[in-house]
Amino acid sequence: MDINDYLIETRRYFHRNPELSFKEYKTAGKIEEELKSMGLRPERITETGIIADIINDKNKKTVAIRADIDALPVTEENDVDYRSLNDGIMHACGHDTHITMLLGAAKMIINDLKNFNGNVRLIFQPAEESPPGGAIEMIKNGALENVDYIIGQHIWGSLDAGKIGIYYHEMMANADQFNIKIHGKGGHGSAPHEAIDTIYISSHLINMLNNIISREIDPQEPAVLTVGKINAGYRYNVIAAHSELSGTVRTFSRDVQEKIKKRIGEILEGLKMIYNINYEYDYEYGYPVLVNNENISKIIEETASSILGNENIVHPKPNMGGEDFAYYLEKVPGAYYVLGGAFPGKHIGNHSPLFNIDESVLYNGALILKESARNILLKNP
Amino acid sequence: MDINDYLIETRRYFHRNPELSFKEYKTAGKIEEELKSMGLRPERITETGIIADIINDKNKKTVAIRADIDALPVTEENDVDYRSLNDGIMHACGHDTHITMLLGAAKMIINDLKNFNGNVRLIFQPAEESPPGGAIEMIKNGALENVDYIIGQHIWGSLDAGKIGIYYHEMMANADQFNIKIHGKGGHGSAPHEAIDTIYISSHLINMLNNIISREIDPQEPAVLTVGKINAGYRYNVIAAHSELSGTVRTFSRDVQEKIKKRIGEILEGLKMIYNINYEYDYEYGYPVLVNNENISKIIEETASSILGNENIVHPKPNMGGEDFAYYLEKVPGAYYVLGGAFPGKHIGNHSPLFNIDESVLYNGALILKESARNILLKNP
Amino acid sequence: MDINDYLIETRRYFHRNPELSFKEYKTAGKIEEELKSMGLRPERITETGIIADIINDKNKKTVAIRADIDALPVTEENDVDYRSLNDGIMHACGHDTHITMLLGAAKMIINDLKNFNGNVRLIFQPAEESPPGGAIEMIKNGALENVDYIIGQHIWGSLDAGKIGIYYHEMMANADQFNIKIHGKGGHGSAPHEAIDTIYISSHLINMLNNIISREIDPQEPAVLTVGKINAGYRYNVIAAHSELSGTVRTFSRDVQEKIKKRIGEILEGLKMIYNINYEYDYEYGYPVLVNNENISKIIEETASSILGNENIVHPKPNMGGEDFAYYLEKVPGAYYVLGGAFPGKHIGNHSPLFNIDESVLYNGALILKESARNILLKNP
Amino acid sequence: MDINDYLIETRRYFHRNPELSFKEYKTAGKIEEELKSMGLRPERITETGIIADIINDKNKKTVAIRADIDALPVTEENDVDYRSLNDGIMHACGHDTHITMLLGAAKMIINDLKNFNGNVRLIFQPAEESPPGGAIEMIKNGALENVDYIIGQHIWGSLDAGKIGIYYHEMMANADQFNIKIHGKGGHGSAPHEAIDTIYISSHLINMLNNIISREIDPQEPAVLTVGKINAGYRYNVIAAHSELSGTVRTFSRDVQEKIKKRIGEILEGLKMIYNINYEYDYEYGYPVLVNNENISKIIEETASSILGNENIVHPKPNMGGEDFAYYLEKVPGAYYVLGGAFPGKHIGNHSPLFNIDESVLYNGALILKESARNILLKNP
Repeated sequence: MDINDYLIETRRYFHRNPELSFKEYKTAGKIEEELKSMGLRPERITETGIIADIINDKNKKTVAIRADIDALPVTEENDVDYRSLNDGIMHACGHDTHITMLLGAAKMIINDLKNFNGNVRLIFQPAEESPPGGAIEMIKNGALENVDYIIGQHIWGSLDAGKIGIYYHEMMANADQFNIKIHGKGGHGSAPHEAIDTIYISSHLINMLNNIISREIDPQEPAVLTVGKINAGYRYNVIAAHSELSGTVRTFSRDVQEKIKKRIGEILEGLKMIYNINYEYDYEYGYPVLVNNENISKIIEETASSILGNENIVHPKPNMGGEDFAYYLEKVPGAYYVLGGAFPGKHIGNHSPLFNIDESVLYNGALILKESARNILLKNP
Repeated sequence: MDINDYLIETRRYFHRNPELSFKEYKTAGKIEEELKSMGLRPERITETGIIADIINDKNKKTVAIRADIDALPVTEENDVDYRSLNDGIMHACGHDTHITMLLGAAKMIINDLKNFNGNVRLIFQPAEESPPGGAIEMIKNGALENVDYIIGQHIWGSLDAGKIGIYYHEMMANADQFNIKIHGKGGHGSAPHEAIDTIYISSHLINMLNNIISREIDPQEPAVLTVGKINAGYRYNVIAAHSELSGTVRTFSRDVQEKIKKRIGEILEGLKMIYNINYEYDYEYGYPVLVNNENISKIIEETASSILGNENIVHPKPNMGGEDFAYYLEKVPGAYYVLGGAFPGKHIGNHSPLFNIDESVLYNGALILKESARNILLKNP
Repeated sequence: MDINDYLIETRRYFHRNPELSFKEYKTAGKIEEELKSMGLRPERITETGIIADIINDKNKKTVAIRADIDALPVTEENDVDYRSLNDGIMHACGHDTHITMLLGAAKMIINDLKNFNGNVRLIFQPAEESPPGGAIEMIKNGALENVDYIIGQHIWGSLDAGKIGIYYHEMMANADQFNIKIHGKGGHGSAPHEAIDTIYISSHLINMLNNIISREIDPQEPAVLTVGKINAGYRYNVIAAHSELSGTVRTFSRDVQEKIKKRIGEILEGLKMIYNINYEYDYEYGYPVLVNNENISKIIEETASSILGNENIVHPKPNMGGEDFAYYLEKVPGAYYVLGGAFPGKHIGNHSPLFNIDESVLYNGALILKESARNILLKNP
Repeated sequence: MDINDYLIETRRYFHRNPELSFKEYKTAGKIEEELKSMGLRPERITETGIIADIINDKNKKTVAIRADIDALPVTEENDVDYRSLNDGIMHACGHDTHITMLLGAAKMIINDLKNFNGNVRLIFQPAEESPPGGAIEMIKNGALENVDYIIGQHIWGSLDAGKIGIYYHEMMANADQFNIKIHGKGGHGSAPHEAIDTIYISSHLINMLNNIISREIDPQEPAVLTVGKINAGYRYNVIAAHSELSGTVRTFSRDVQEKIKKRIGEILEGLKMIYNINYEYDYEYGYPVLVNNENISKIIEETASSILGNENIVHPKPNMGGEDFAYYLEKVPGAYYVLGGAFPGKHIGNHSPLFNIDESVLYNGALILKESARNILLKNP
């Protein structure tokens, strides 16, 4: 089969069969099958995490390439024939393409192995979407043993297909989660004065939370607070005794991170005083800031420039998203970058129920992975 | 078995086995069983609705007594040994006691039938909690045929056990439902500027809805708007593309009802303009205003006074709740009233997950039903 | 001069020359002049308050008629040739017509005095608009000495000219004032994170205050809370260190009044905790509930019916406004009522900068005052 | 007199006598007097704007040093004996020190003129605080004629005395003003349903405006929106028919600037639809982004380092404030920087009613101005 057909067919397979974080059983099985068909010996080092080595010369250095493999609890709204078959689950962050491009790169590397001044390790990691994430356990179980450098590539819904985004230093933010439960007093919807209405109180809370960013954080410090989920109430005419909210906080600085954490608590304490509620509040630190190695980023940039043309290299501002690729970069030098996946003029952000990509980018994505690995080994013998 | 033991045991049986509106199959079966054991011939006139006649003299008048039999989608939070066995369903409005007191009254009437100047019809009606409600179909299928008067009694969590509340005219409000869906644009929680965040927008909506009552309705016109339920978002770090809210509107006047309906729509239209959302909005008219017959109310008051003592009669203000008993009163004269069920000093409103009642009121509740029916027939031969 | 011309000319004089509460010097002088020209002997019993007696038979009873004479700090927006000459002051509550109709009634009474079974006292009272109001001091200084009954009439912008509104019992609410100062921390508008922005915090406060009414007060209890004034900030680009708000609370029940007073304090205390502000809060009890005497109200209704036709008598719901006429009614039986002043289909509420009246009502207004006084004396000899 | 005593005395004189933008008559007079006493010939080129040249060799280059001279409409809250004598006006931005340090630098330059490889122009500019500002007219009237370089220094309340902050490129933001008037419908405070309450509506507006920044602007793009002033309502019990707000928007990018301008309008349009208000909205573009010349900035840094020590040089992030010094930099190369003025550990931001500075910095401030000018002329002959 033509490599392009292989990439598209493989991507659609994974797109149809998304699995949630830490539950990528079918996905991992399929990856192993593919790797074996290439003659590799995949090793399952966590329940759904796989590594596989492509060895040229054991005495030389090794570059790892990592793909994350999990999907999101999003209900797909795309009307395509390879639509998700698993209700409420979707590869809305494009990890289906990550798996695919790493499998494609593996094929290309095997074919060109004689030109590699070293070795390549493939890392298929579960659960990037769900902190604490899959990276920590992968590393603990040896994913980086004998690895000298690491690279990773993320498909990007708000960058045109054909373009690539390179970052020299910081790329991704601290990405934390908070969970809040408000306990009021239920009652009949017709008698609000006898109840404590947690939906009404949540409306003040959401508003005050959003304004932390606009009124209380230095405008020079990028920071985001998003309430992503709220569930409250049983029924239209029963006052909601309980309200549950969860959200995310993104920052690049420890001070700002701590200030927001503290302010959420103070707002809840004030609302408790005003409305006589009780509450539970926990704040979970997520992935740390992701910091690229400048040297490796530059090699990737040169490689991509030779494939896509210099006019297609962009240098975006750091992104407020979190990534557990940050943990690998705390251990070995490397770089993470983004590959444009958007149909021209039709940017749809990752995580949207309408996220989709121009499949023509899969080939170059795989090629950039392969060539970047080759160039890193050449330049850092 | 002692009648008191019967009442408590029966009430606990129904409390343990709550069923949602229109699905009261087990409940209806148990009611039929009980009625048959008293020698009556229950007739299933709707899928889960039952009538049964206690005939003394077919040439004389008939008083109907109605009990509603459905439970609510509330998760019980009472720690009692007769706690609901059906997860997420609870007799949080006390209809378990309504069934019980009507069964108890039936026993008492049968025993004292010779003193009745007429006949009694028992009406066990499904789905009071779920508009359009069970009353309309019961009436259509003959529940009021040959009925001259009707009475109904509601257990009340915010009135002390031992007291009774009588209303001469209006007692319950127009009780409507509204449902709103907001459609924004999903995306990654770290990039709010690329999405349209329906949770944030809902916080403005809820706030503006609540203020309709305080800023736009004549303060002399009792009116309530409650958002009872909101669900939005999949996940803490994905911006919620969709938000669903539902709530209730209570009014005593058609003008106010129509104004609120219109204002909800205008607020949504303005938020659409501001935030570029789409929305769906429907407004369902619920039960109409419930209007008692003054004469019947006075007979019930005298009856209750002789049983509970005059000091235990109260005349509450009309209630903002809705009741499909209103439909019966549009056909035949009658009255609805409330029976105190609260443990002293521990008022917990109906519909709360902590709703419970002092079971010692069951006996007098049944007795007042029976004696009121007897007195109505005596005074209106 | 024709009485109608007199009424219109007199009204326009007072409309052109409005004076604020307790400062009605020119107004009082003009009233005295008019009274003297009728042969009466006005007596200045407070700095700007006047009484004048029309005596028929000292041994018989006396009815007092009271007009309030002060204007409001409102900038008139009417484009009429008798527009207020005093910038920022306007007879936006129609007291210009009250003075005028009482002067007109005085002329009519004098002409018809032989038909009066007693005497009439004219009371021109300052400062109705500004609690503690002028009534208390007028009463202290003898305004009600030897007075047996009292009546008062208010022009009404939301009732058609030609109609009259009668109340048998409660007519006006408790009318209280609250004042709030919020102290934050100023700073440069470009650095909100270094300041405490009292304008932003006030936006939450106003919102929470308005929602007290919609979420925390029994919908059956009429209640209003209005923030009527806010001033904060020096300059567009300096963060406002201080914010001052004032408003009014209207209730018919002591419990509701006290609950709102307490809740305002609790909201401020919670906002202090959340935003680290300081605040000052005072709550001033205003005029008490105004309660009419049913007998006197009925005499006025019969009188008005004979003049305006029975179809023009309405019985409005009690009004949420406050009135220091309430103090007179605490001393002697009497009644207060409203006279429609609106151009057909063009209702503009009292206190609006666009408030104006159909001057054709002045004649009947004066006549109803005169005839009501006459009838009260006849029926209560 | 000792130069230090001169600096402190002069600063306190200007602090006591602050004048608002474009009205710096007394201030300008005093400056002229001081310059003349040094033997210079001040030239009044705008109503209150002055230039004065210190000539060494007309054939050589000229460095301009600019001080802004106006004060703010802030009521001073400092309890010092040199407190502002002009009620409601204060040198809360420290321009009193700017004038003083430029006068001090002039004295130093005159004394050391033989060591200057060129000439110095002193620019005392009015109205920095009040866009369109004084710079445009000063430039139009010749302030930069024959000027080759320009420098400016701002005292800084949030930087310790003894430190200096240098910026190589962008330093200050676009600083715009917006003004909003909302027109509703007045009425009596007790009848909100008959009025359109602009205070309540403003509370929603302020909230929505603040959230533009947190929800709609790329978190990587520094942006601020502050409502600095609101005035609404005449009186506590009259519903406010009109509300006036003004505020500032700060951005570093044209796109963000235009988006915020547009969003304010859309929010107003939506609120008009919801609440039936009318509004006026104008958006005034203020000072443009201030961009330093890297070369000149480095000379100032070296100069300051030799005076304060290298450990006292900081490189702050660009500031969100606006500065009309930006206009000079559009014409000639130069640099603007900040001089720490804070008492240790007691940072109070510029524009606060409590703003004050450690006067011991005045000497080094003057010296750095003088030496920087000298070094610029030496290195750019």
